[in-house]
This record gives sequence, C-alpha cells and structure tokens, in this order.
Amino acid sequence: MKYVIIGGDAAGMSAAMQIVRNDPGADITVFEKGSVYSYGQCGLPYVAGRLIDSTDDLIARSVETFRSKYGIDARILHEVTSISPSERTVSGKNHQSGEEFTQPYDRLLIATGASPVVPGWKGASQQTIHVMKTIPDTKRLLEDLDHEQVNDVVIIGAGYIGLEAAENIHRLGKRIRVIQRGSHIASMLDPDMAELLHQEAEQHGIILTLNETVESIEKGRVVTDRNQYRADLIMASVGVRPNTAFLKKTGIHMLPNGAITVNDRLETSVPGIYAAGDCASHFHLVKQKPDYIPLGTTANKQGRIAGLNMAGARRSFKGITGTSVFKFFNLIAASTGLTEKEAQQEGRFFRTSTIETKDRAGYYPGAVPLRVKILYDPKSRRLLGGQAIGQHGAEKRIDVLAAALFNQMTVEELEDLDLSYCPPVNGVWDPVQQAARRAT
Amino acid sequence: MKYVIIGGDAAGMSAAMQIVRNDPGADITVFEKGSVYSYGQCGLPYVAGRLIDSTDDLIARSVETFRSKYGIDARILHEVTSISPSERTVSGKNHQSGEEFTQPYDRLLIATGASPVVPGWKGASQQTIHVMKTIPDTKRLLEDLDHEQVNDVVIIGAGYIGLEAAENIHRLGKRIRVIQRGSHIASMLDPDMAELLHQEAEQHGIILTLNETVESIEKGRVVTDRNQYRADLIMASVGVRPNTAFLKKTGIHMLPNGAITVNDRLETSVPGIYAAGDCASHFHLVKQKPDYIPLGTTANKQGRIAGLNMAGARRSFKGITGTSVFKFFNLIAASTGLTEKEAQQEGRFFRTSTIETKDRAGYYPGAVPLRVKILYDPKSRRLLGGQAIGQHGAEKRIDVLAAALFNQMTVEELEDLDLSYCPPVNGVWDPVQQAARRAT
Repeated sequence: MKYVIIGGDAAGMSAAMQIVRNDPGADITVFEKGSVYSYGQCGLPYVAGRLIDSTDDLIARSVETFRSKYGIDARILHEVTSISPSERTVSGKNHQSGEEFTQPYDRLLIATGASPVVPGWKGASQQTIHVMKTIPDTKRLLEDLDHEQVNDVVIIGAGYIGLEAAENIHRLGKRIRVIQRGSHIASMLDPDMAELLHQEAEQHGIILTLNETVESIEKGRVVTDRNQYRADLIMASVGVRPNTAFLKKTGIHMLPNGAITVNDRLETSVPGIYAAGDCASHFHLVKQKPDYIPLGTTANKQGRIAGLNMAGARRSFKGITGTSVFKFFNLIAASTGLTEKEAQQEGRFFRTSTIETKDRAGYYPGAVPLRVKILYDPKSRRLLGGQAIGQHGAEKRIDVLAAALFNQMTVEELEDLDLSYCPPVNGVWDPVQQAARRAT
Repeated sequence: MKYVIIGGDAAGMSAAMQIVRNDPGADITVFEKGSVYSYGQCGLPYVAGRLIDSTDDLIARSVETFRSKYGIDARILHEVTSISPSERTVSGKNHQSGEEFTQPYDRLLIATGASPVVPGWKGASQQTIHVMKTIPDTKRLLEDLDHEQVNDVVIIGAGYIGLEAAENIHRLGKRIRVIQRGSHIASMLDPDMAELLHQEAEQHGIILTLNETVESIEKGRVVTDRNQYRADLIMASVGVRPNTAFLKKTGIHMLPNGAITVNDRLETSVPGIYAAGDCASHFHLVKQKPDYIPLGTTANKQGRIAGLNMAGARRSFKGITGTSVFKFFNLIAASTGLTEKEAQQEGRFFRTSTIETKDRAGYYPGAVPLRVKILYDPKSRRLLGGQAIGQHGAEKRIDVLAAALFNQMTVEELEDLDLSYCPPVNGVWDPVQQAARRAT
C-alpha cells in the first residue's frame, strides 16, 4: 500500500509511526516543504527567551531517524502544490533541485498545518513583522532581537503565543508592549479571570494596550486607531490559518476558515484522503460540532488516529473539549470547554460559580491563591466549561474538568469525584469541587 | 425536626452545615466526646514536624462558631454510649459533669470516626505507644519528642500516616526506623512503584525494616520475629478501626470490620439512622461493592450528602475510587483504583502499562522524572487503577485517572482526553496517555 503524507510535523509523523507499526508492507512517502521534522513547536517562545539553548533541543526525531530506522521516504524541501483525487496523485516542487514531482498514493494524509496570519495593515509589507510558528521564524526573531538598537518590542495580539513571547522577550531585557483589540488579554479566559493576568503584566512591567486596533505599520512605529507606539521590533500573534489553499477544486470539504472537515476517523469528504492537525477541523465535544482550535496535543492525537485508520484499523477520535494552558510569568492560566462568550455565541443557558481558594491546604506552608471558575447548564446541571489561574495547580484542575467535560458530567457528579488530598498537594475539597458546591 | 449527630468532626459537621442550610427549623444537637470540633486531621503529621506551628492552625471552625453563628447545640466531652432505635433516643455520659444524658431524635447521624489499632503485642500495655489520629494524640507525641533522651524513634507500620510521621519526626533530628510486615512500604502502591520510596527513604537516612513482624514491646526496645531494635519512642500506624462497638444490639448492619453499612443516601439498615465518614462503609466504584477506606475527603462528602438527605433532599453519593496521595520527603506518591494485589484479590483479569517520563516537556528547565502505571482490563479495555510517583505532578495524573475510573473509561478513551499542555506544565502526550498508548 502506497501512503503519502503531506507535512512532516506532529500530525504527519504521528500518523507515519502508526502506519509503520500497523502495516508492515507500508510504502510511506512524506513531503515536507521545510527542512525539519517533528519538533516541539510550543517550546519556541522559550528558545526566544534563551531559557532553552537551541531549537535543536526541540527536535523529537531527526529526518535521518525516520529514514534509516523506520524506512520512511522522508523528503525535505518538497512542497506539494496540488493533488488529484481522480488520478490519486500529488504534485509539487522540489525546492532543492528545482524539479517538479508527481507521486501516486493509495491513501493520502494532509497534515500541512497552519500559518500565522499577518493582517493587511497599511505599510506592513514594507516592514519586518515577526511571527513565531516555525524554527526559521524563531531564528529570524532571535537574530533581530540581538541587535543592540532593539529596545522597544511591540507584540500585536494577546493570545497565548503573544503572551508567552512577551514573557520571554522581556527576559532578554526588552521593553514590551502588547496591543490587544479587545478589552482583556487571553480570550480563552473570561474577563474576571484575565484580570489576574493584567495585574501580572503590570507587576512585570509589560505594557498592555487594550481596546486599540492596529491600522498601520511604519518604520519604527505601530499606529493604532488611537495612538502610535515606538517599535524597534514588531511581532504579530493574531491567529493562524490552515494551509489548505492548494486544495481548491479538489472537492475536499472545508470550514469557512479553510480547515478541512473530517469525520471521527479523520477521513475527509474524499474517500482515501485523510487530514489531521492544524489544517483540519476539530470536533468540539461541548459545542457538538466541528471547530477549529489548532494545538499540538490535538495534532498528535488526530495524526495518530488518522494513521491507524489509514493502516486499516478502526479507531475513532472522540473530539476535543477546547483545553488550553499557558504560563505568564508566575501564573499558570488554563481553560477548557466554553467561556461565557462562547456559551453566549452557542446560545446556551449557563450559570457560573467562581471561587478564590488555595492550591493546597490553607495551613500548609507555600499555599498560593488559586481562582477557579466553572460554567454549567442550570437545567441539565451539566458542566459547560472551566477556567483556573494561579501560581500553582491551575492546570491540574483544568485536566479534571477536561475529563469531566469529556464524560458530560454534572456539577453534582463533580462533587463526588474521588480526587487526591493530602495537605501538601490539595485541600480536602478540591478547588473544582468547591466551585461545584457553590453552583446554585 | 430533631437531629442528633454523634461526632463533631469532618463527617458530622459537614452534615450539620447542610441541615442548617436546608432545614430552617432544624433543632440540631451534636455530641462530641472530645473537646475540639472539625479540624484538619491530615495536618497533624506536619504539626509533629513543626512545619505547622500549632494544632490550632488546623481548626476550621470553633465549637463557639457552630453554636453562635449556626445555632447548633454543639456539646463537647459528651460521649454517646448507646442508642435505642425503638425509642429513638441516644444515651451517654457528660464527662465534664459526670452526669448521664438521654436525648431523643427524629433523624440520627453516626459520625464517630475510627481509632488507631494498637495490636496486642506482648508487653505493649506497659509501655507508651504513640498514635497520631487526634489533636491530643499529637500533643502527647510532641511532648515526648521534646525529651532530650529521645533519639531513636521506631514507627510500626508503613502506610501513609507512618511515612508522613517518619518524614516529620526525622525533621526534628531523630533517628527513624520504620518496621513493615510486608516486603514494601506504602501498600497502596505496587512494589515496582514503591521501590522509589525505598530509595527516597535511604537517601534521607530513614531505616526501613521490611518483612519483620513486631512481637513484643519492652522498655526502650521493639522486638520482632527476627531482631530487636532500640526505641526511645514508639509509634504505631498499622490501621484504624471504626468506632462502632457501642452500636451492638441495635440491628444496624456492619461490615466484618465494624464499618456501618450505608446505602447511596448514607442511610443505615435502620430507617432514620444515617452514618458517614470513618465509621461507615464506602462504596468502591471499581470493586462495585462496599469497602472501607477511611479518608477525610470521603468523610466530608459522605457527611455532606448524609446531611442533605436527613434534611429532606434526595442526593446520592456515587462512591469512591480509592484515591490516596501522600508526600514522602521529595516525592509525591499517589494511587487510585485497584493495585495489582487488589485486582488479584478481586479476581479481575488485568494487564499493566508503566512508563518513566517527565512531569513536563523534557526540554523545559526543571523537568523531573515521573513514573506512571495503569492497570486495565485487557478485554473490556476499561481502566482498573493507576499509580504515579515523582517529585512533581503525580497527584495531577492520579486525579485524571480518578475521573476516568469514576466514568468507567477505557484506555483508548484516556488517549483521547483533551488534557492541558504547554512545555512548563506537561508533555504533549500527558503521562497517563503515554501509559495508555502502550497498553497492549
């Protein structure tokens, strides 16, 4: 069986490994348009902040390993530019040789990922606007950050990548301004949770410029609808877009944003063609519909299950609950399920319960504040979402809530969970249960 | 409605608070044989280790608060010695006045807790054998530890209390020997997990004496079936027994060990009489039968639900999954569901999957080793239990597994869970998912 995989990162190589393990006669070709395979993208901000020495540390497996150890025909600098479902071929260009290529497949996986969006701000094309999605992006950023003249860094967009970048570039001694269109940073949190991040930013001297929209970029300046700001270096982190433009006219169905629609086996609308990771849609278990929340965790899971199905196994991917977590200076902020805004957008009735508590027994040395919020349906009592923020223990509670959402638990069932307790690690009522107990 | 509660600790006062909140006309009397209400028993080892200043720090609410703020007739030094289900009365002795008392009830809660077992070792009655279950126990222990002549401390029994005591008394500069009948300490873990605790004990100079059974206690010595050991102070931590001897001839059903059998509403076999906490049985969701795992978390939950039902609400307690966690020097060890030994005892088919991984992304500074083991049914694929041990992050993974067990998840569903990931807090595949992926 001839397998072709487009894209050699998390989703693509997770699939490849499953095909290797489950189809001994597999003939696998991977076309990667860059030159690096399978690395920890989420570690890039920490390389930028010199907390991790080199992007090399992020590489899980080298191209050579995939070739020699697993017998995968792993190509680099091969960009697929079109596919023909009727002929069952992919075509593209080898950027090393300059030659065109065409390759037949029996089963195809599209794992082309996503690219950062840089909006068409006036003047943007004449200036360097950094992004942080790939190793080359990060190397370019590091080079520019090394210039002595670079003091004022402006980051446009305050999602987790923007905030991780802010913390890390701040570590290099730069002055950081984060510009956010909305009234609070980190839109995976509600405003009452994000306010703790605002305080944390202030404490560390990060300037937050909220409720302003960037209009143009000039040399050394970012101009918004209200002000203009000095910017020796500019980074955009306003979202990503699936790399699926080359699939036009293939009949492969997509969401309006270009994410490839997949079923629970990760197959697209065209039989024999699968998609996984940042280029694909992600079934949201709380929304009960396809969504687009590109993350490394989901890319790995979808890739793995796509590979299993391509190799003949039957395995379905249940879906995501929209979990995310990031570190911002001394705080960990985490979220799963629906925020208030999302619940409104989905037309769901909801109530919230928020508690201020500690990460461990209040009397135990080192206990730190933890704020936990849950959203639930007042009628069915089902949990709809949760958020947690604090110096310690937020991600733990979100993982419990993610498991609860996966299993459609009610707030009363949450109270019954047998969660671990001893004074150094928890209170006798876990924070998520304290929130559940106050659910009216 | 007249409510009587026997026992003023976690279960009893959790119930009392629910009755206060749900029955405005409630007439509540609590009989507590000691003089302290509602405190954090699990913090006692840390008071012994002087990490927490005083047992006062552990008291959540004073007797006076229950009286004045919540209108509860909260008695101290009142020991109930018998109950009469036919007359609906409880009788006992007021140890302050020396008088007998009898009190009628409409609804009765038995929340008398448990007491440490001190086996009938030869000579034991002539020597002081410390235990650590109550505030007075701990005060006595602290007094004796203060003696200059006390250098060699022998702890008999290596459950979590014995091990927490070992760490804390070691902090005071004492030489600690822990004697355990079995071949490994911490029986809530399998031997391959507990071996990390053995290493930790060795590193901190705790002497473990395994596979020896204590036979007699002499002045300054503990004698086992193999050796004898110097002991300036002896502590026993070999288990607890429900405080239910006074219920003989009441017709209230009990497990063979004396734990009161309760249904999911925490009612006993006698209508109108409820039981909760360390004196009651605990329905084990994995074993699907009543069990006895006395813990503060369960006492709080059962007490709360008993109170709700006593006050007229209908609320059921689903049950426990047998979760426990404790700190031992730099390690956190946690467990939920069945160990291998328990799975064998229950006659369950099982397989295990164990991984050695890190608590966070391997390339992120500060990553520490984490060992995670799961047990699962090879046919139904259902998770049966899990254990985790490491310097950081063990309790988090056990809470996810506890939620998984509660929801009867399979190992494949575990793989799909949308658990939080960013390099400072996790790997892209959470350790529990790494274990699940290797489940054959």
